[in-house]
Amino acid sequence: MPEITRADVETLDQQDPLARLRTAFELPANQLYFNGNSLGAMPRAISQRLRDFAEKEWGQQIVRGWVTQGWYEMPQRVGGKIARLIGAAEDEVIVTDTTSINIFKLAVAALGFKSGRTKIVTTRDIFPTDIYILEGVVNILAGRAELCVVESEKLCSTIDQQTALVVLSPVNYKSGALFDMAKMTAQIQTQGAMVLWDLSHSCGAHEVDLHRIDADFAVGCGYKFLNGGPGAPAYLYVAHRWQQNLQQPLTGWKGHAAPFAMSPEYRPAEGVTRLLCGTHPVIAMTCLEQAVDLFGTVEMSQVQQKSRRMGDLFITLAEQRCADYGLTLLSPKDSTCRGSQVSFQHPGGYAIVQSLIEKNVICDFRAPDVVRFGITPLYQKYTDVWDAVECLVDLLKSGAWQERDQKPSATVT
Amino acid sequence: MPEITRADVETLDQQDPLARLRTAFELPANQLYFNGNSLGAMPRAISQRLRDFAEKEWGQQIVRGWVTQGWYEMPQRVGGKIARLIGAAEDEVIVTDTTSINIFKLAVAALGFKSGRTKIVTTRDIFPTDIYILEGVVNILAGRAELCVVESEKLCSTIDQQTALVVLSPVNYKSGALFDMAKMTAQIQTQGAMVLWDLSHSCGAHEVDLHRIDADFAVGCGYKFLNGGPGAPAYLYVAHRWQQNLQQPLTGWKGHAAPFAMSPEYRPAEGVTRLLCGTHPVIAMTCLEQAVDLFGTVEMSQVQQKSRRMGDLFITLAEQRCADYGLTLLSPKDSTCRGSQVSFQHPGGYAIVQSLIEKNVICDFRAPDVVRFGITPLYQKYTDVWDAVECLVDLLKSGAWQERDQKPSATVT
Repeated sequence: MPEITRADVETLDQQDPLARLRTAFELPANQLYFNGNSLGAMPRAISQRLRDFAEKEWGQQIVRGWVTQGWYEMPQRVGGKIARLIGAAEDEVIVTDTTSINIFKLAVAALGFKSGRTKIVTTRDIFPTDIYILEGVVNILAGRAELCVVESEKLCSTIDQQTALVVLSPVNYKSGALFDMAKMTAQIQTQGAMVLWDLSHSCGAHEVDLHRIDADFAVGCGYKFLNGGPGAPAYLYVAHRWQQNLQQPLTGWKGHAAPFAMSPEYRPAEGVTRLLCGTHPVIAMTCLEQAVDLFGTVEMSQVQQKSRRMGDLFITLAEQRCADYGLTLLSPKDSTCRGSQVSFQHPGGYAIVQSLIEKNVICDFRAPDVVRFGITPLYQKYTDVWDAVECLVDLLKSGAWQERDQKPSATVT
Repeated sequence: MPEITRADVETLDQQDPLARLRTAFELPANQLYFNGNSLGAMPRAISQRLRDFAEKEWGQQIVRGWVTQGWYEMPQRVGGKIARLIGAAEDEVIVTDTTSINIFKLAVAALGFKSGRTKIVTTRDIFPTDIYILEGVVNILAGRAELCVVESEKLCSTIDQQTALVVLSPVNYKSGALFDMAKMTAQIQTQGAMVLWDLSHSCGAHEVDLHRIDADFAVGCGYKFLNGGPGAPAYLYVAHRWQQNLQQPLTGWKGHAAPFAMSPEYRPAEGVTRLLCGTHPVIAMTCLEQAVDLFGTVEMSQVQQKSRRMGDLFITLAEQRCADYGLTLLSPKDSTCRGSQVSFQHPGGYAIVQSLIEKNVICDFRAPDVVRFGITPLYQKYTDVWDAVECLVDLLKSGAWQERDQKPSATVT
């Protein structure tokens, strides 16, 4: 392959149908932000939206805002907007609580549907909170459930007639490797088990079609590729066929069929509304809605295409220019098998990431040796990739990273 | 008692040591807001704070904000500020999730401490979500717990050697009647049970001293008397003596001893931090912190004193001026037995509340016949009480409320 030049990359930006969206985001000057898979950049409109919320909604309407400003229906309304991004029906998705808590609700619900089966299966490389929550489910169910955490390769041989639920992330958060969602869903369901997909690293990043693959449950967070702000509310998906009889353990008043009747007995609301629990954080959900609305003018196929091209470009440039410096590609080279990130391994990974951040290339480190670049097609340019690789090449050539601490203290994402 | 005049009431405002705080709140013109026990009015500083958050924090720092802007420690930091209002130590309170979810965590934890005991006791007149959540706890524990929901009068005779936990609100949300927290806590603990106080209608409204009464657990919401905004994050309290061995079921990554080690096994953090679950909503917590900071310059004894005086004034004026119109005082007349609200019963309660709201006296209705006025000493004036009663007298005299719908549709709080 001929050496790629910056001019080639500039042409990609000129031809990019999503380029118009970049100005919708606040991006610090002189920074290359490759960490949208941890926390998405801020949509510019958020600032004015928050001002309106304070001055026109809460400030003026106070309690009446629940009715006059549409606060009350936000979990359903914003859920409906997210549904479009993951191939779900509007009334199959609701915004509520956190990813962790939503996994808890749905894991317990799955065991309720699959009585007689006790096994919950997940992979060792899933985001750890998923495992922690499933440990919590197993503990509270004391003997009525067991958790099998296995290497991805052993997944299929572990799922059996005792398996009630399999919890998976389509994307390995370290390597970026993708599961074949359709194939895995089919294999799981063939064994009579249910699947819960954690879409935190998928929704807003690559194409997901929950209806096409006939998924049972899904969850995901609002603060990565959806750009809803730090700790933005999470969402969950329940396929129509499971909604009618679903029983979840966090039976708070907002999931009640008649929350204002103040009856002393719990009676679940219809549909996904029964997955609500307490009063939802309106301000946080307002930001999430504003951010999700930015997806209203794009197709996820466009986002995925740009993500793959940017990833391919990153990998090709790294191969052409960093080959001699001990950097090993961890992500799949085939873009159809890769989520919206590119990860490399390097023995000096921690120090390299710190050096890059100091040079305003914001990426992150995952122990023991992973250098991770998140790709966010809504606000990144192809030339950001060129410039990040340029910076990486300079750093590796100079060896300057070797003068830094080689061990991480606490890292935050 | 001689007839009170508006001039008398104006004198109370002139002598009010908390009067200076009113301008710290955004209050719609020409409105008398008596619903701060549902949703607190907005502190004026919120608007600028949200702007700074967008423009200087999220917008500029993006993911680094977790470290540079103090986002990471917010649950502990804001918890520590709330601790001061309820007589707890800073490291006994943490802000997280919703009141409902926090009740779930602590109820399961209590049963863990009191193994062999299976009974959870609460009162029929507690806010319904507390009951619903306890039903959820009992369901998931399938035989290892039972729930007794009793009238307040039968509480003491129900608590026995089988009782693990008693969940109580100091304030009856309809009548405003107060429990004697010290006496109840002692009675519960004498039986070897634990108490969980739901402070949603107490914190920021009247004096609470969890250390003095030696309480075990507490929870509360941030959006009523704390003025943290619609659906503001909730908090919980765990007495030092229970922190070491507490096990809670929602074991998410933020409650892990080393969340960024990404280890596949859950290991709880020290202290109340183990009560965290998923990533916290920074924007919502920013508002709550700003609001709680307003309490930094006042003593809860001052707030309680003004609340009682305002309530007494409301009751006296209503007695003097509305005696002939079918209004019955539901709240205790003795202010030491009353929370920060005044409730009346009236057969036309629903229509009366709608009429008052139309006249910009914002109060609320609780089925079947309760007219409820919340009292919020931080931003209300004594003359607000005068003017509200004036409006109520006019309405009752004219009988205009009789021309309205006499039945509620859905009410929102």
